[in-house]
Amino acid sequence: MRIAVLGTGSVGQTMGNKLAALGHDVVIGTRDPDEAKARMTSDRDWVPPFGKWHQDHPDVAVATFSDAAADADLVVNATNGAGSIDALKAAGSEHLDGKTLIDISNPLDFSHGMPPSLFVSNTDSLAEQIQAALPGARVVKSLNTVTARVMVEPGSVGGGDHAMFVCGNHDDAKAEVTTILTDWFGWQDVIDLGDLTAARAMEMYLPLWLRLTGTVGPMFNVKVVR
Amino acid sequence: MRIAVLGTGSVGQTMGNKLAALGHDVVIGTRDPDEAKARMTSDRDWVPPFGKWHQDHPDVAVATFSDAAADADLVVNATNGAGSIDALKAAGSEHLDGKTLIDISNPLDFSHGMPPSLFVSNTDSLAEQIQAALPGARVVKSLNTVTARVMVEPGSVGGGDHAMFVCGNHDDAKAEVTTILTDWFGWQDVIDLGDLTAARAMEMYLPLWLRLTGTVGPMFNVKVVR
Repeated sequence: MRIAVLGTGSVGQTMGNKLAALGHDVVIGTRDPDEAKARMTSDRDWVPPFGKWHQDHPDVAVATFSDAAADADLVVNATNGAGSIDALKAAGSEHLDGKTLIDISNPLDFSHGMPPSLFVSNTDSLAEQIQAALPGARVVKSLNTVTARVMVEPGSVGGGDHAMFVCGNHDDAKAEVTTILTDWFGWQDVIDLGDLTAARAMEMYLPLWLRLTGTVGPMFNVKVVR
Repeated sequence: MRIAVLGTGSVGQTMGNKLAALGHDVVIGTRDPDEAKARMTSDRDWVPPFGKWHQDHPDVAVATFSDAAADADLVVNATNGAGSIDALKAAGSEHLDGKTLIDISNPLDFSHGMPPSLFVSNTDSLAEQIQAALPGARVVKSLNTVTARVMVEPGSVGGGDHAMFVCGNHDDAKAEVTTILTDWFGWQDVIDLGDLTAARAMEMYLPLWLRLTGTVGPMFNVKVVR
């Protein structure tokens, strides 16, 4: 499958690694591919500079948002939440119409210091704003509730005995993403929370995720015990 | 110990049951005790009318918010979030100063239909507003993340193998509440999330709790797998 992963940060790199290792034809989408490939510094010490990552992954193509999305069968939004709508508009609605779009982004607002607040929440969500901006895409919110490594390697925490959520307005797209989560990544418990308004709940969980990360570190996830 | 439980709904009743069964001297605080004791209808079919509950629990006193709090060693806020600050002001700052106040309330706003949104969130929380309104109280946020029965009977879900959170600005009060959670109620994993600003995270979890309740029912809780 040809997959466009939009974003060059830790989530984009981790998704790119995993999807390429699974044998898919992966292209990383970014605003300026030449700038990204030349980037040799990172503002987060646990994330490799993208230029270095690209040197280590010559099998993964790097293209503009638009070129990456154009031929993709599946699109993954791994951009920073604050830039997601601009990035997806740059990808082009004509390149997203009818396609499943896995939205991993979180609407984190770091402008008031740490911990970040959310720039949209409560009565709206970033996933809903993305769906409204790109009505032809089939947006499925998922994976935004764990750190990058756990997204694609759930067994790295507690043998994988914990939960992932999905929501969206397109049942066929949710079914496709659920299969990716279980069969490709190894998720054992995927819970369908309903339509895309449930993204409010998934994004509003982030403040708790951030507090727990501060307490137990990022390598954790919640299990829904019932 | 003399404990004031403020609120006559399912949380107040459940806390009253449990604390009285543990041998404590419990008084339920409410705006109008005579009205509450005469109440023989309930707006939620899974919650007994308070008058009926009171008949079944003659050992539990019912008093005004102020009288309930006056002689209490410990105060539990089990009122509806929308009325919590008014209820606590009615209890009287002079009756709360220096006392541990377990805040179980959630800032749920049902005015826009279901699911409810939050009337305060993101950059503030109801617990912080309560602490600001009653600066002498030692507010500890806890128990707001599970249904009433699970609060006092964590073993009713998955043998109790799941987590409860606490936060607050007073370490001694948090330690007292943690002991109540573990030794009185049987919680196995109590996670201290830090100061009272973490109540934003605990209250913003409610939308996910509500979605999960709609999917798996209310008898669940999250385990923090790490």
